[in-house]
Order: sequence, then structure tokens, then C-alpha cells
Amino acid sequence: MTISADKLTTQLGWRYAVKRFDASRKISAEIWQALERSLILTPSSYGLQPWQFAVITNEEVKKKLPAISWGQQQPLDCSHMVVLAARRTMDAEYVERYMSSVTETRNLAADAMDGYRRVLVSTVEKMDSHLDWNARQVYIALGQLMVAAAMLNVDTCPMEGIDAQAYDQLLGFHGSDYTTVVGCAVGYRHPEDAQAQAVKVRFSADELVRRF
Amino acid sequence: MTISADKLTTQLGWRYAVKRFDASRKISAEIWQALERSLILTPSSYGLQPWQFAVITNEEVKKKLPAISWGQQQPLDCSHMVVLAARRTMDAEYVERYMSSVTETRNLAADAMDGYRRVLVSTVEKMDSHLDWNARQVYIALGQLMVAAAMLNVDTCPMEGIDAQAYDQLLGFHGSDYTTVVGCAVGYRHPEDAQAQAVKVRFSADELVRRF
Repeated sequence: MTISADKLTTQLGWRYAVKRFDASRKISAEIWQALERSLILTPSSYGLQPWQFAVITNEEVKKKLPAISWGQQQPLDCSHMVVLAARRTMDAEYVERYMSSVTETRNLAADAMDGYRRVLVSTVEKMDSHLDWNARQVYIALGQLMVAAAMLNVDTCPMEGIDAQAYDQLLGFHGSDYTTVVGCAVGYRHPEDAQAQAVKVRFSADELVRRF
Repeated sequence: MTISADKLTTQLGWRYAVKRFDASRKISAEIWQALERSLILTPSSYGLQPWQFAVITNEEVKKKLPAISWGQQQPLDCSHMVVLAARRTMDAEYVERYMSSVTETRNLAADAMDGYRRVLVSTVEKMDSHLDWNARQVYIALGQLMVAAAMLNVDTCPMEGIDAQAYDQLLGFHGSDYTTVVGCAVGYRHPEDAQAQAVKVRFSADELVRRF
């Protein structure tokens, strides 16, 4: 095992939604590189990766964020503010682009994936809402990012309470194929963040888990 | 750090969607306990935990799963088949139950959360689709579970391709407050699973990440 089962549980318990980041502490390039890889390596349905990620570290840009985050300071005070955006649509053209990346990466003949491509296009064309489907995949990335960070003793705060339209404008997603779904502030907790002391609240296993 | 940045990246690269599990290998009680904790400790919007998890290890029940999973064998051959279900609705009564668990766990006065409760009920009552919102939260749990497993050298296969209605019937979710959203087979890869050798396909950081 890479870590012990106990240590995993400890780190998952150590994590909490940070209310106050230490604005003086920045994530090192090495650590950030690993966290960015965790975003990119996130699994998605059929491997389609229907997302883009905006990473905000520039102070001038960060200063604009509380006003479009219902006044919350985490996007400003954290080290790296991540905005997770979902692709608005899913269509044959995108599937084609993905399949080309599969055949190139795996050194396959250009037509090796034709059968799979047809199934996938047909599946995609039958769906009601591509944005809903794509947004769900984005939440896998959010979950993966928060655990990956916790493994490196890096703090996070997932943020649904942001003005997605205003973020779209600021980040150039407006009018693009992608739209803001959820944010995640990443950095280090302030030593005086009282929230760190709050006991974690969870329903019991008896309430949440059915065994068969 | 709990693990090095390199090791994290290695484990995320080691993970893949298993096609063929080794049916002879079962997850130990200690490891499973940690993975179940990872499900329970998953962060959710407002901490509401709008989910239940079914864990299937009984061989008689598992034998029924390929037929309701488009013939896929992972739910049968894995060690623990997890079904992640979302709450169908979200309402004042559920918020009340959650707030009671907050005040009890944190030893607060019964009315300490009244202001927050009112805001939350009002927020929830304004939403279009509670199931969509709740299902997104479930995908955080899916992401957290897959990384947690990878940290313990345990394999997974996320499975959207399951017959949710049939799973609801089998697991008693039918007619309940919860409904099947996605599955995740958990166990150990078969040594002959060819998929383990396939090069991971991802778009480049240039394509997926916007920097500000």
C-alpha cells in the first residue's frame, strides 16, 4: 500500500471546507504540478473529459473574485483558485476529436475505434441534457482534487456559491463551449480559522450504507 | 506531506477503469473499513450528504448484477460492488434532520443553527431540480472513492452503464427517498486484464487548463 488505511482515514478527517485561508502561504510549483495532474487525470464517462479548468493565481484577477462569490474571501485568500467548467454540449465532432486523441496516443490505426465511435455518437445523441451529464463528470474532478490535496496536506474549499455567469465573463468561458460549474479554493488554512476546530458532522454508517 | 507529490501522481496514473477483476481476491476488512469511511466523509454542498450507498458482497446477489449492467462482469467479479444513490428530493424536513445532527454532534443549543437553517431551507426551496443537485454531490463521492482506493492500491471501475431502475428494485431503493445514480466496482485487477496496459489518454494541459 502507498499509505496505511489509518493514514488515509486520518487525512480524510483532517480535510474540511476552509473558511479562512492563510493568504501569505502559496503552494509550491512541485505541489501544484501534482494537483493539476490530478485534475487532468480525473476519470470521466467514456474518457471524454468534458471539462476545462481555470486556475487563478494573479492577485489583480483574484481581487475581483469575492464580489462575484457572494462576498466570500476564499477565492482571494487561497493560493490557487480553481474554477471547474463543464462542456455545454456533447456531439459527434467532439467524440471525433476524442477518438483521434485515443488512436494517436495508443498508436492505433485511424479506423481502429470506428465501432466504438459509432456506439458513442449514438449514445450521446440519445441524451436529454449534455450539460447535466458533463457537470456530473466535473464533480468527479472536484472529488479527486480535494482528496489529492488532502494527501499532500493542502487545504481546499469547494464553492458552489459563486456567480457562474460572472465567472464565465471574467474567464472567457462566456460564448465558449464551456461554462462554470463549481469552484474550489486551494491553499493553506489560516492558523486562526475557527472552522478547523469544528467537529465533522456526518450521518452514521447505519443511516447511509445498505449492505447486501 | 503524507505522501510525496510524485507518489500521488504515480498512483493517479496507476489507476484505470478495470475491465476484468480478479474474482479470487477480496478486500480485507481493514481496507474496506477505510474505503467506506471515505464514502461517509465525502464533502457535500452545505454538508447535507444527500446520498446512500449500497455495498454488495453477497455472491447470490452479485450473480444478478451482470444482467442489469448491460452484461458487464465487473459487478460480479469485483470484491465490493458499490452503488451510489442520490436523494430524490431536498426539503425542509430533511434540512431539519441534518441541522439536528449538527447541533447534537457539536453540542450546540437546539436553536443555534436557526438562522442558517432558514437560509438553507429558502435556498433549497428555490431550486429547480433537487435530484440533479443531489446527483452531482454523489459524483464527489465517486471521485473521492476512486482516489482513496488508488492510495491503498485498490482498483475500481466507475459504472454509469447500469440499469438504475433494476438496481433500485434489487436494492430496495424503489419507492424510497433514494435512487441509483452510478456504480463503482471495487477490488483487484486480474493479472491478465489487457486494459491495464493501455496508455492513458488525456487531452494536454494546454487544452484543458486556462491560467490567470
